Amino acid sequence: MSQSRTRIGIVAPASRISPELAERACALAERLYPGRVALDVHPQCFLSSGHFAGTDEERASAFLEVANDPSFDAVWFARGGYGAGRIAGQVTNELAPAAREKTYLGYSDMGYMLAGLYSQGCRVAHGPMPADLRRDGGEAAVTRALRWLVERAPQTVELHAERPRAAFNITVLSHILGTEIEPDLSGHVLLLEDVSEHLYRVDRALFHILSHKHMRALKGIRLGRVTDVLPNDPDFGESEEEIVRRLCARFGVSYLGRADIGHDSDNKVVLFGNE
Amino acid sequence: MSQSRTRIGIVAPASRISPELAERACALAERLYPGRVALDVHPQCFLSSGHFAGTDEERASAFLEVANDPSFDAVWFARGGYGAGRIAGQVTNELAPAAREKTYLGYSDMGYMLAGLYSQGCRVAHGPMPADLRRDGGEAAVTRALRWLVERAPQTVELHAERPRAAFNITVLSHILGTEIEPDLSGHVLLLEDVSEHLYRVDRALFHILSHKHMRALKGIRLGRVTDVLPNDPDFGESEEEIVRRLCARFGVSYLGRADIGHDSDNKVVLFGNE
Repeated sequence: MSQSRTRIGIVAPASRISPELAERACALAERLYPGRVALDVHPQCFLSSGHFAGTDEERASAFLEVANDPSFDAVWFARGGYGAGRIAGQVTNELAPAAREKTYLGYSDMGYMLAGLYSQGCRVAHGPMPADLRRDGGEAAVTRALRWLVERAPQTVELHAERPRAAFNITVLSHILGTEIEPDLSGHVLLLEDVSEHLYRVDRALFHILSHKHMRALKGIRLGRVTDVLPNDPDFGESEEEIVRRLCARFGVSYLGRADIGHDSDNKVVLFGNE
Repeated sequence: MSQSRTRIGIVAPASRISPELAERACALAERLYPGRVALDVHPQCFLSSGHFAGTDEERASAFLEVANDPSFDAVWFARGGYGAGRIAGQVTNELAPAAREKTYLGYSDMGYMLAGLYSQGCRVAHGPMPADLRRDGGEAAVTRALRWLVERAPQTVELHAERPRAAFNITVLSHILGTEIEPDLSGHVLLLEDVSEHLYRVDRALFHILSHKHMRALKGIRLGRVTDVLPNDPDFGESEEEIVRRLCARFGVSYLGRADIGHDSDNKVVLFGNE
């Protein structure tokens, strides 16, 4: 990381952001760290191709351009949505040495990128993204991300999780297992969160995750927030924490308590691994 | 199968049905085959435990009672919903020899049961269930299932699919891969359908399925209907068939065309395997 000025590249492997949102993020960074941080928003972030911020090729190419450029200290993912899984396998096979010298930050659909990059030995973290500015209180989340990216401020990080650790969206992790980007989480504390799902789907995805024999080598699970839960018909009959406790007991994985992560403005940063 | 009277046991490994619905199914069977078919609706179908037709133990126990009873010719699953995945691994490890002498019919969430039973060498088929009576034109679907169960009437079956074949809901199959009930589908034509999903989720689940290296040993994929599609914001930019064609091309799996299955009254019967 350069001593004087932190250079952060922003790319969007899934859904697009608007130029206005990018400008707000840049203005916030300049207010927090005048002259000390450069947010370099890749124009790919504003492309549009159906659901995505550009075609698979455009998103993959923009990511590799920034990840493989030694002048960047970090890659900050602009937004989740959907689409990272379509490029994560390819791009993590095309990393240059410079890609292993920087930090990657994002969450939600970006779990595909974190998984692939962590499998390749990169330094990755689960935490807020520029698109969180759209939330109520979102400036606090984005400020937290910047304070972590620029100075690793201690109050920005999730404090409960033992090391080594990793954090994922439950639904996204369920879609990563069995694929080439699946990371080795043996011995890890796994922090999980989810959003906008029916509880039966949370149960289904976590059942799927723990049905993989190698996931029983986890050190344990911590549950972040499960928000914007969609109505279950009939009522599911359990809370999200009861679901996780039951499935941990069934599959012989330790349930370690709650974690301070989620699709909200309080979402803390979780650096993967032992650091 | 007994010569005189076909005895069909009905159980509900996922969501419950009402006694009224069960009575309608029985009346329909009696009208179609007076004195020649007995629908034996297990009382477990009417239990209620949160989301489910009874606890995991109650649903597993009812299934095993019927599956392992040599006096039944077939097990007909009452309804999908969610819950079969929570018992499929256990029950398919507890099958008695009689369970391999009968036929199993259902779809949707029952894909978990079909997967586990097919892995164990049982005769399973994807097709309508009693709960389809709730659909517009649902009596035609349930009639089709009965005509198949009782006399294997040729007009009830899906005619496009080459053998060996198997059929699944896309989302359900995505949650089966990597677990103990995953069937060996090498060389199979795989018929797929889905319901009530955003197109980005169809893309995500099928991407996950085809990301499993062993799924590239499929003979090919046929696409049934994808219905009640939820709004995609922004528009996904592809139809469901374009999604399947693109992913098949990407992963080197043959796309063989459409199939006459889906969450609707036209849903034809697909017997798994080479029969």
